[in-house]
Amino acid sequence: MREMEIEDASVEKAFEGKVVPRWEKQITLRAMVVSVVLAVLFTFIVMKLNLTTGIIPSLNISAGLLGFFFVKMWTNVLSKLGLLNQPFTRQENTVIQTCVVAAGGIAFSGGFGSYIFGMSSEIANQSPEANRSQDIKDPSLGWMIAFVSVVSFLGLFSVVPLRKIMIVDFQLTYPSGTATAHLINSFHTAEGAKLAKKQVRVLGKYFSFSFLWGFFQWFYTASDGCGFNSFPTFGLEAYKNKFFFDFSTTYVGVGMICPYIINVSLLIGGILSWGIMWPLIDARKGDWYSADLKPSSLHGLQGYKVFIAIAMILGDGLYNFVKVLGRTFIGLYKQFCKKKIGTSSSGPDSCSSLSYDDKCRTDMFLRDQIPVWFSIIGYVIIAVISIVVVPIIFHQLKWYFILAIYVIAPALAFCNAYGCGLTDWSLASTYGKLAIFTIGAWAGASHGGVIAGLAACGVMMNIVSTASDLMQDFKTGYMTMASPRSMFVSQVFGTAIGCVISPCVFWLFYKAFGNLGVADSAYPAPYAIVYRNMAILGVDGVSALPQYCLVLCCGFFGGAIVINLVRDLVGKERAKFIPVPMAMAIPFYIGSYFAIDMCLGSLILFIWRKLDKFDADTFGSAVASGLICGEGIWTLPSSFLALAGVKPPICMKFLSRAQNNKVDALLES
Amino acid sequence: MREMEIEDASVEKAFEGKVVPRWEKQITLRAMVVSVVLAVLFTFIVMKLNLTTGIIPSLNISAGLLGFFFVKMWTNVLSKLGLLNQPFTRQENTVIQTCVVAAGGIAFSGGFGSYIFGMSSEIANQSPEANRSQDIKDPSLGWMIAFVSVVSFLGLFSVVPLRKIMIVDFQLTYPSGTATAHLINSFHTAEGAKLAKKQVRVLGKYFSFSFLWGFFQWFYTASDGCGFNSFPTFGLEAYKNKFFFDFSTTYVGVGMICPYIINVSLLIGGILSWGIMWPLIDARKGDWYSADLKPSSLHGLQGYKVFIAIAMILGDGLYNFVKVLGRTFIGLYKQFCKKKIGTSSSGPDSCSSLSYDDKCRTDMFLRDQIPVWFSIIGYVIIAVISIVVVPIIFHQLKWYFILAIYVIAPALAFCNAYGCGLTDWSLASTYGKLAIFTIGAWAGASHGGVIAGLAACGVMMNIVSTASDLMQDFKTGYMTMASPRSMFVSQVFGTAIGCVISPCVFWLFYKAFGNLGVADSAYPAPYAIVYRNMAILGVDGVSALPQYCLVLCCGFFGGAIVINLVRDLVGKERAKFIPVPMAMAIPFYIGSYFAIDMCLGSLILFIWRKLDKFDADTFGSAVASGLICGEGIWTLPSSFLALAGVKPPICMKFLSRAQNNKVDALLES
Repeated sequence: MREMEIEDASVEKAFEGKVVPRWEKQITLRAMVVSVVLAVLFTFIVMKLNLTTGIIPSLNISAGLLGFFFVKMWTNVLSKLGLLNQPFTRQENTVIQTCVVAAGGIAFSGGFGSYIFGMSSEIANQSPEANRSQDIKDPSLGWMIAFVSVVSFLGLFSVVPLRKIMIVDFQLTYPSGTATAHLINSFHTAEGAKLAKKQVRVLGKYFSFSFLWGFFQWFYTASDGCGFNSFPTFGLEAYKNKFFFDFSTTYVGVGMICPYIINVSLLIGGILSWGIMWPLIDARKGDWYSADLKPSSLHGLQGYKVFIAIAMILGDGLYNFVKVLGRTFIGLYKQFCKKKIGTSSSGPDSCSSLSYDDKCRTDMFLRDQIPVWFSIIGYVIIAVISIVVVPIIFHQLKWYFILAIYVIAPALAFCNAYGCGLTDWSLASTYGKLAIFTIGAWAGASHGGVIAGLAACGVMMNIVSTASDLMQDFKTGYMTMASPRSMFVSQVFGTAIGCVISPCVFWLFYKAFGNLGVADSAYPAPYAIVYRNMAILGVDGVSALPQYCLVLCCGFFGGAIVINLVRDLVGKERAKFIPVPMAMAIPFYIGSYFAIDMCLGSLILFIWRKLDKFDADTFGSAVASGLICGEGIWTLPSSFLALAGVKPPICMKFLSRAQNNKVDALLES
Repeated sequence: MREMEIEDASVEKAFEGKVVPRWEKQITLRAMVVSVVLAVLFTFIVMKLNLTTGIIPSLNISAGLLGFFFVKMWTNVLSKLGLLNQPFTRQENTVIQTCVVAAGGIAFSGGFGSYIFGMSSEIANQSPEANRSQDIKDPSLGWMIAFVSVVSFLGLFSVVPLRKIMIVDFQLTYPSGTATAHLINSFHTAEGAKLAKKQVRVLGKYFSFSFLWGFFQWFYTASDGCGFNSFPTFGLEAYKNKFFFDFSTTYVGVGMICPYIINVSLLIGGILSWGIMWPLIDARKGDWYSADLKPSSLHGLQGYKVFIAIAMILGDGLYNFVKVLGRTFIGLYKQFCKKKIGTSSSGPDSCSSLSYDDKCRTDMFLRDQIPVWFSIIGYVIIAVISIVVVPIIFHQLKWYFILAIYVIAPALAFCNAYGCGLTDWSLASTYGKLAIFTIGAWAGASHGGVIAGLAACGVMMNIVSTASDLMQDFKTGYMTMASPRSMFVSQVFGTAIGCVISPCVFWLFYKAFGNLGVADSAYPAPYAIVYRNMAILGVDGVSALPQYCLVLCCGFFGGAIVINLVRDLVGKERAKFIPVPMAMAIPFYIGSYFAIDMCLGSLILFIWRKLDKFDADTFGSAVASGLICGEGIWTLPSSFLALAGVKPPICMKFLSRAQNNKVDALLES
């Protein structure tokens, strides 16, 4: 598990000649400018992903690449003009990385595709339950910024005192953080810089392609059901059941980043649900549920889709929660035992087990301290502000609910950060779901338990998510010899800009694209309806479900646990061939079109690796990042066009032959 | 001009060890089987090109490659089984090449996209003139095969006695024949065989891609105006004026084979006509011509399109006719002078000016003689049959018209074969047009001059076109040491199968795709309407033209001559930047969508050559051939599907936003 075992040669020896700048010097103006630019860019991409499928791959590598690229370009220009007074160091690179991750994290943990948007009337009106005014809170820029701001900083302060324990004492892996650190370290060697330049060029090429493709597609989408994203690639029947390739470069890119088994799981989930289950349940229309219902009604087929998906997500979440928590405690127990032995045996001996790299890094990491009293005072002050402000925003969420959350939150934040260090798996959304159920039930239906549950989810998720994200960053900082203080400042700055950027970007989407959250539209925001219905479930119980839905839900809940158990029991080699229940659940509601994109991404990468493994491994993630970022950024101009009232001129429509004859008759008349 | 100056090293020395088989051994069963397969393949492709735009690039290289590939595959299998009793020689390869070219040539000179289809009621009904029954002859398999059979062999016999003069005495270049010979020679070296294998692999890859793409497109073309070939790539306004990329891989491939200036000329012609002239003339509707006319009426805008195109084609044709004829006579005169000097000086001296290659080749070429009396008797017999049979098929074409043609035809065939040897430019269609006007006027309107003119065009074109094609083949045979006798047999065989395959393939298109010859359809067959209207013009004079059309025609006729003159005067270097009038005229009638495809092909090749000149030069024509053949062959299954009544299930339609709203209202109701 120790990362020093992974490295074959000392990294720090390679950097021996280079001076590590003082922590204030690590935070430069140029780094902050680049951070803001990248934060806006990644917020757009994450927001788009939030609102289309909710699947968000790790964008750390593209953030690292682009951050390096921008600053390098800037320093190159300056050095040619003779104005460069400070070289670009890996510490500065880490600061940018940290800031962008912190800002982009808010776009996810802010819940704009889940709990916050789940409060809106757009989502509420899709089910007949709980749409009194006390159960609805429509998005508005003011309260969103206020809410996100008061809840996001707590995670930061809760995690700062723990960093020495996690990173230095426990030497946790934090796979993503370690990978990012390796990347940044490699950029700052001569060899690595050359490779990075090539990777950036590849990224740029695919970025342009993806952006232009998005632009081209735009012209043909005059209304819903038009354009390439409604292309019935496998025929009209398959299209009706959401099996089609929607020409989205974003999800092809996402598919290239996600492991094969995730993409295959998505496809299996899609085939199981839209290919087998929904047609079977649809045949029971009039028997199991009324045939007169609107297609969007949760008492009909839609209800089965949403609640079975929720059941699988909860089953998977619960299993992993127990598992990670179990490993956390076992890990802690072992650490405790080891420590005891460590202190009883001689000091220098245990110290000599540290590699040269680790010695240097630990020295550096412990040099610039952040006092514990500072973080405790910070936590208390912000908690007090939060307890005062949040009930003003959500009158349904009483102050004592929040107090209760804040009392237990540091423990949960620690658990999540530790578990993430071991497994790379952040359970933030699972903790959030726990909050939905507990606080929702506590508040009760008559007191607006739905909004209370969703808001509590937000409070909880922000703390635990930030805690694990930032600990990953500290690991990166540790491995790149960045000062904890500069990291902390960068995290505060990143969180602060994220609290403004994310609500604004969401607001732009909300205003520009009229039909956010509508099933079958370009932005179905699947998790918004899932979260809201979890809240309703927590408050009202299971009485509102259509017939046999509860039985099916229990089955899938249990199935998710069993599949996970089997995955863990058969060993890593064979687990590669067993699907992941969490991934299977997502297409249940929105269909498997994006799963087809992602499987195509997998296929491309697979073939590429067969043809040229080195090339694929070196440039694969650059290609994927380019594809994701290009189309993601196209949503920026496209949303401005929509706001300005500029509509695409052409509709590319797909008609059956019979329909086409009718249409031709109409057009000729 | 002598090709031995081009070659830097002796080719025949490289082949010194290899025995040239006797001429009967050069014609093997396997060669004939492969020839038939390829003949069907290329007839499909040429027929498709005939009926879509009439632009037919040289397919010699792909025929050579594929012929080599098939026989090589066959001999490899046999040699592995130990059954190979005869190795694959370049002479056999030449025999296949010759046979395929002869068969494929019929698809062009048979006039299925021009004079024969121009006689049909489909084309006749598009103009009010000359559609009495005596001016119409609808296609039917029987008479087409009979007609093509009796007129196609004459060219063969007229050219055989001249081959020694053209090839050995005059040492004419025949650029296409020479290029094909180089190709075949290179295939049969060890190095060349390896390269050919690679080229075949590239060809196969693009063939599959193009075929599958055609297959995929098919699903979305439920009716006219559906599918990718109606994709308004540059917007709906541009689409109305025929500016769009129609996703046809065929024409992208054609664009890669045609010279840049041809593709650019097409585009300029398209912009000049559909971008400027037609909108201007359209604005005169009601003034220059009646506004109540059907859009397809030749008295309206359509008339300007067709007749201005005819004027340019005739202007260009006339200029080149005079030019090539002039060069032919000057060339002959020089040859004659040289001969005189040659015979007066000593024999061995003139002989020593021949290279080693030429000596070997001349020896071989003169070994297997075909007696002159044989070809004269053949010519006379077939002419007599033809004079008897053709008037039975077309009662409008009297026997003395045909006799007149056959008396002067050998002279014209000689001129065309000689001109082609010098310039690579076959003037067959120009001779055909001359026949339309002269015979049409001779017969007169009241005696069915239109059909007489078109049929005469066929008689004339077949002789002169075959003459130049086959002389090219003799050149190839000369350079690959193939026996003239085996060449002749192969040509007879190729012509014979072509006379059956071509009418059958045309018949398949005619029956399978209902709307052949209709403007705006997938198969507008532009030359059919152009040829028919030339015939009407020849018979009726210019009185039927709409107002000012004659003035415009004269302008463009003169313009075509002037542009050609300028092209010749400024020298080869600068002529590359002056458009070719013949190419400019084609989009006048059918629009410039295929010009956009072809320019894309040019662009791809241009960029490829910038990136990797060697690769582009080596594999460019393989890629192009693959693209052309794949989609061309897709028309085979697609026509069978159409015959079986299987229609594509989906229409991919492009609607303006306003139309789309109407359609959505219709579909929801």
